[in-house]
Amino acid sequence: MASSRRRKLTRSEYKIQADELREQLVQLQLALKRAPFKVMLIIAGPEGAGRGTLLQTLAEWLDPRGVETFSWHPPTTEEREHPHQWRLWRDVPAMGRIGLYAGSWYTETLREEARNKRALRHVAEEAERIRDFETLLVDGGTLIVKVWLHISEDAQGRRLRTLRADPLTAWRVTNEDWHHHRLYRRLEKTAALIRRKTNQPGVRWTTIDAEDERQRDLDVGRLLLARVAAHQRVIAKLPRAAAANPVALRPRGLRRLHALRLDQEMSETGYDALRDKWLGRLSRALRSAFNTGRAVVFVFEGWDAAGKGGAIRRLTSAADPRDYRVIPVAKPTPEEKHAHYLWRFWRDVPRDGRCAVFDRSWYGRVLVERIEGFCREDEWRRAFDEINAFEKELTDHGVIVVKFWLHISHEEQLRRFREREATPHKRHKLNEEDWRNRRQRAAYEIAVGDMLALTDRKNAPWHLVPADDKRFARIEVLCTAAKQIEAALAD
Amino acid sequence: MASSRRRKLTRSEYKIQADELREQLVQLQLALKRAPFKVMLIIAGPEGAGRGTLLQTLAEWLDPRGVETFSWHPPTTEEREHPHQWRLWRDVPAMGRIGLYAGSWYTETLREEARNKRALRHVAEEAERIRDFETLLVDGGTLIVKVWLHISEDAQGRRLRTLRADPLTAWRVTNEDWHHHRLYRRLEKTAALIRRKTNQPGVRWTTIDAEDERQRDLDVGRLLLARVAAHQRVIAKLPRAAAANPVALRPRGLRRLHALRLDQEMSETGYDALRDKWLGRLSRALRSAFNTGRAVVFVFEGWDAAGKGGAIRRLTSAADPRDYRVIPVAKPTPEEKHAHYLWRFWRDVPRDGRCAVFDRSWYGRVLVERIEGFCREDEWRRAFDEINAFEKELTDHGVIVVKFWLHISHEEQLRRFREREATPHKRHKLNEEDWRNRRQRAAYEIAVGDMLALTDRKNAPWHLVPADDKRFARIEVLCTAAKQIEAALAD
Repeated sequence: MASSRRRKLTRSEYKIQADELREQLVQLQLALKRAPFKVMLIIAGPEGAGRGTLLQTLAEWLDPRGVETFSWHPPTTEEREHPHQWRLWRDVPAMGRIGLYAGSWYTETLREEARNKRALRHVAEEAERIRDFETLLVDGGTLIVKVWLHISEDAQGRRLRTLRADPLTAWRVTNEDWHHHRLYRRLEKTAALIRRKTNQPGVRWTTIDAEDERQRDLDVGRLLLARVAAHQRVIAKLPRAAAANPVALRPRGLRRLHALRLDQEMSETGYDALRDKWLGRLSRALRSAFNTGRAVVFVFEGWDAAGKGGAIRRLTSAADPRDYRVIPVAKPTPEEKHAHYLWRFWRDVPRDGRCAVFDRSWYGRVLVERIEGFCREDEWRRAFDEINAFEKELTDHGVIVVKFWLHISHEEQLRRFREREATPHKRHKLNEEDWRNRRQRAAYEIAVGDMLALTDRKNAPWHLVPADDKRFARIEVLCTAAKQIEAALAD
Repeated sequence: MASSRRRKLTRSEYKIQADELREQLVQLQLALKRAPFKVMLIIAGPEGAGRGTLLQTLAEWLDPRGVETFSWHPPTTEEREHPHQWRLWRDVPAMGRIGLYAGSWYTETLREEARNKRALRHVAEEAERIRDFETLLVDGGTLIVKVWLHISEDAQGRRLRTLRADPLTAWRVTNEDWHHHRLYRRLEKTAALIRRKTNQPGVRWTTIDAEDERQRDLDVGRLLLARVAAHQRVIAKLPRAAAANPVALRPRGLRRLHALRLDQEMSETGYDALRDKWLGRLSRALRSAFNTGRAVVFVFEGWDAAGKGGAIRRLTSAADPRDYRVIPVAKPTPEEKHAHYLWRFWRDVPRDGRCAVFDRSWYGRVLVERIEGFCREDEWRRAFDEINAFEKELTDHGVIVVKFWLHISHEEQLRRFREREATPHKRHKLNEEDWRNRRQRAAYEIAVGDMLALTDRKNAPWHLVPADDKRFARIEVLCTAAKQIEAALAD
């Protein structure tokens, strides 16, 4: 805060410095266009610190084609009917762009606190969610710059009075602003709490003195410049992703996989009766879930040709086509590849009372991406925790998460590959990649084992399905799905 | 309907034909992946005609990676707070994919009609909107296949009784279904009306006999196959887009442009007073609009270096940063290029009580795309009507649309280009493309003239702004914006 003792900048001094800074910022944006990361600049602070005019200055300095501006509004019905993080993921800038946050959770929390003291109780809880979200983005390579504009009580009063005196700006000063001014000291404390709770390595707050408007704008512009330049150097030094022979992190997962009895079978007549029974139970359970506003997410993972598609079709025949959506997960599109790996799945998280069936899923991060070296080791290692946190967001909101691993033996897979080759309308299902994955069976088994060991949680458990016999597997899926949903509803 | 007299297919006959069809469908999907169009398959019909099971069969036959399923739900708050078409644009499949519509406006209208006779009154009006939307997509190259499943009154009764008798499917039969059955004849008439009102060249209905389920599924699969194959041939024969020397369609537009007096100036002192006056009026007008739930859309078009950016910054300083969003329109991304040209703008249409400022806009279709030959002649010629219809959708919903053309002389543009070259923090604004566009001034003037003549409507008029003098232009923008919003609110 030493800067508050600096003398005020004159207009011409400001002009010279601003022009120089603008040129640097524009050069920065040109470099950023090709950089593999995104920037989020969050401006928070009390009323009268000039968040609005600062953002307008930045909008003037920066090339608007590389900027996105986001606001913070009360959640819409659609947003309330999704897990909390869903709306946060909507407001993330595209790769190589700078997102400016005209409002944010931080400032809104201050407002709420001014309205109602009890809001403070929720600050700790909410701060944790925000911290988790920011960590997720920062770990994924995003640069988050958080600026807190500081203004003294006296200066705040002066600023509000000046705004009120000018007919052009008088409308900007609301009764709420004066109320905030009267609560200056209490809100200062809340602000300090918010900053402390959300200050962490890689996402620290920078406090900027906002008393001199010109100096404030220059300071923020220079901070942005310095942080982006430093981040570019960090990103450039990251090791490249590479495939390596996998070593199991948790051997017990692999043991669980190998212990599964694949010789379980079911006769055709037995199948018909059980299918009808469990389809009925499942359809009733799903309707209860939907009627009480619970969403259901099914995750299907398994070996190529393990019968995911067939199992999904039987499962969905228990639901009204208007209530569910099957999401086949293929290689990411270029747009998706540039985003955080969880982003595209957040997009498809169902709202309350709906169902999403994922045919492959976010587990690709710790399976194919790990084995093929599509991401760095630190990335897939971190993903186990990230995925657990993601699924917890879902189940905390009331979403029922049912996960299946469809397991077949190496021999049965070969038999099915050969059958696909021989059946004209199935031939398209098989390609060179499937054969390549097959040759990597041992490596994938290690990855599957770690996945089972590290992401099998009470709120979102893994169900291993012996699938060498298709009838047996399908009944297992129907019965497990029905039981898990019934249990979740009974809780 | 001759098919209703065909004998029922046996299971084995069905199997042989279905396997053959499946192979053809899969081949079709492989070809479609690289085809520059999308397919929408809409299945409608009365209860008991088997829409759900048909969709499940299709989902089984088709490769799920090339399919998207869409449902029809009551509009969300977010959807109601946007013009009607906004939600329809959300449910369009990606390029090269088949969209299956598990529910649609057609079936929902039948339901409403069963609940409330008066719904019929709205059918004509709604049908017109749907027809316009479908025409827009079909003109843009999308293939829409609309199937009406027909079932006799007797067969409907039999089907419902069979479903009710089986404990597994009894839940599917609701009281509403029986109510529909009792109203069979009346609903048949409504259905005929709906089909008649939405039957048009290129988007015709095909009625399929749904009495024999197996035959029904085969018939729909074959229809899809035949229509896609035929469409591929049509698309392949389309002429390529090419640039041509433009000829004015409506010379009066060009005359209006040339008649604009560019020698109007404003002194610095005059500017300051007028700016404050009109900023005040504008900020009050915007707040009234937002408070009454009206959205505002500003469109800025004009020559390169005409001062759009500066005018936008002055304009937006009259609004709270949380209420507006500036949308800089650059070249479309690969994803956007594959979509209908209006799609990306629909995405950014503001909800009630918000504001969007478009820095360039959908008018690119009749300006740069026409002159540079980025689209075919029939495409940009059609665009004038499409754009008028698009803006009418907005204003019908209550959105206030304010459009500016910032006009500068050829000489003033050269002066500004040179100035940009000489100013370090402005140099990035100028590139080779700008110089190329400048050499095409005469061609662009013709395009601008046609745009002014053909899209200047009472609900969304064009304002020509003489912009050789920046101060004069900025006041003109503020004053025009304030007045048009005030007038719209007084209506």
